[in-house]
Amino acid sequence: MCATCGCGEPAEATGHRHDTATITLEQKVLAKNDRLAETNRAWLAARGLAAVNLMSSPGAGKTTLLVRTVRDLGAEFPISVVEGDQATDLDSDRVSATGCRVIQINTGSGCHLDAAMLADALSTLDPPAPGLVLVENVGNLVCPALFDLGERERVVIASVTEGADKPLKYPQMFHSASLVVLNKIDLLPYLDFDTDSFLRSVKLISHHAEVLLLSATTGEGLPEWYAWLRERLPDAA
Amino acid sequence: MCATCGCGEPAEATGHRHDTATITLEQKVLAKNDRLAETNRAWLAARGLAAVNLMSSPGAGKTTLLVRTVRDLGAEFPISVVEGDQATDLDSDRVSATGCRVIQINTGSGCHLDAAMLADALSTLDPPAPGLVLVENVGNLVCPALFDLGERERVVIASVTEGADKPLKYPQMFHSASLVVLNKIDLLPYLDFDTDSFLRSVKLISHHAEVLLLSATTGEGLPEWYAWLRERLPDAA
Repeated sequence: MCATCGCGEPAEATGHRHDTATITLEQKVLAKNDRLAETNRAWLAARGLAAVNLMSSPGAGKTTLLVRTVRDLGAEFPISVVEGDQATDLDSDRVSATGCRVIQINTGSGCHLDAAMLADALSTLDPPAPGLVLVENVGNLVCPALFDLGERERVVIASVTEGADKPLKYPQMFHSASLVVLNKIDLLPYLDFDTDSFLRSVKLISHHAEVLLLSATTGEGLPEWYAWLRERLPDAA
Repeated sequence: MCATCGCGEPAEATGHRHDTATITLEQKVLAKNDRLAETNRAWLAARGLAAVNLMSSPGAGKTTLLVRTVRDLGAEFPISVVEGDQATDLDSDRVSATGCRVIQINTGSGCHLDAAMLADALSTLDPPAPGLVLVENVGNLVCPALFDLGERERVVIASVTEGADKPLKYPQMFHSASLVVLNKIDLLPYLDFDTDSFLRSVKLISHHAEVLLLSATTGEGLPEWYAWLRERLPDAA
């Protein structure tokens, strides 16, 4: 990856200028993260937990979806939450109001969560099992795609206000996800958003990703999202 | 800065684990960029050009605002455009349809433009002077804030669909801007967006930033944006 942007791309492909020492360091950073992610995955599996990594642009509605999900499913099985933001406890305060177990990670200038941060958070959070750990990454459609946290699934949440071209313009993120959620569909009547074009763009980038259309505000489409989450519960549940 | 995320923060503050060699490399990357940015600034000033760095989340409306600006002001003074995206020529195609001079930079996995990329682009673009160079950065509210390109002004564009808490959650970006544009105000009737709270959040993060409210779609507020741009024209114009 390129140390200038932490991007995970072979340095030659980014147009940045690197020396050999830089490239070696970049490879080491990602390799170290991948090892820690595998440790997290084993730790979670051994306890009957599955982590879901929620990624999106700032303001796509991750926290609103998360709060509603915890309220609607929290009595059915344990859900714990890890909140990632550059600054503030605003999101963990919103989640905490549901009574759910939550921990906030502030990354400072950091642009994504990494496996070491999740390991520290899990150790403090001590999530009840069997159950799910929902991880809200830093709002960013670029950098989080490259850092495995040890999650079982990656979900990218796009909103209809962002435009239909985002899968093509941020291909790593959409390619890395097993589920694409298209949120804020209640706003479609007021926008010039081409849903078919969005769905075609997702298919061009990813042959494997499922797509769900929903509105975390009105509740439309939430039953399908909840069914998808239930299927991710470890077998022990 | 932290090489894991390219974030510019003292490594201790990010919670990442670094050795001395990593921290030294991180400092070198940012210092080298700053030197190139100063070279760009001098190059632009000597030619009667001023660059404006447009930054936002994905889908906040940078390209729509840019295309409308070029259409409305392009006959008044020369405007050239540098488009930054991870992938595709979609944005430069939209800008090119206006007849304006434009160049596309694809950053691959890179999460921001840097001064070396802008230097290469300017050399190819050969912008007509005296005039403005509008630079559309990669859609990302984190990483672009830390990389000086040699611009005269930094503008962050937020949209009302993203929520009013973004200045607090992405403080580096909002603190680095001299102008905050709040876009998509035509959607306010359909959203639970607290404009006063947004304006208070901007003031908490930045004592110096101006704020303009507009809709690039309906045209409301554009005269004030155009007046702001005219004031950025080099004196030679």
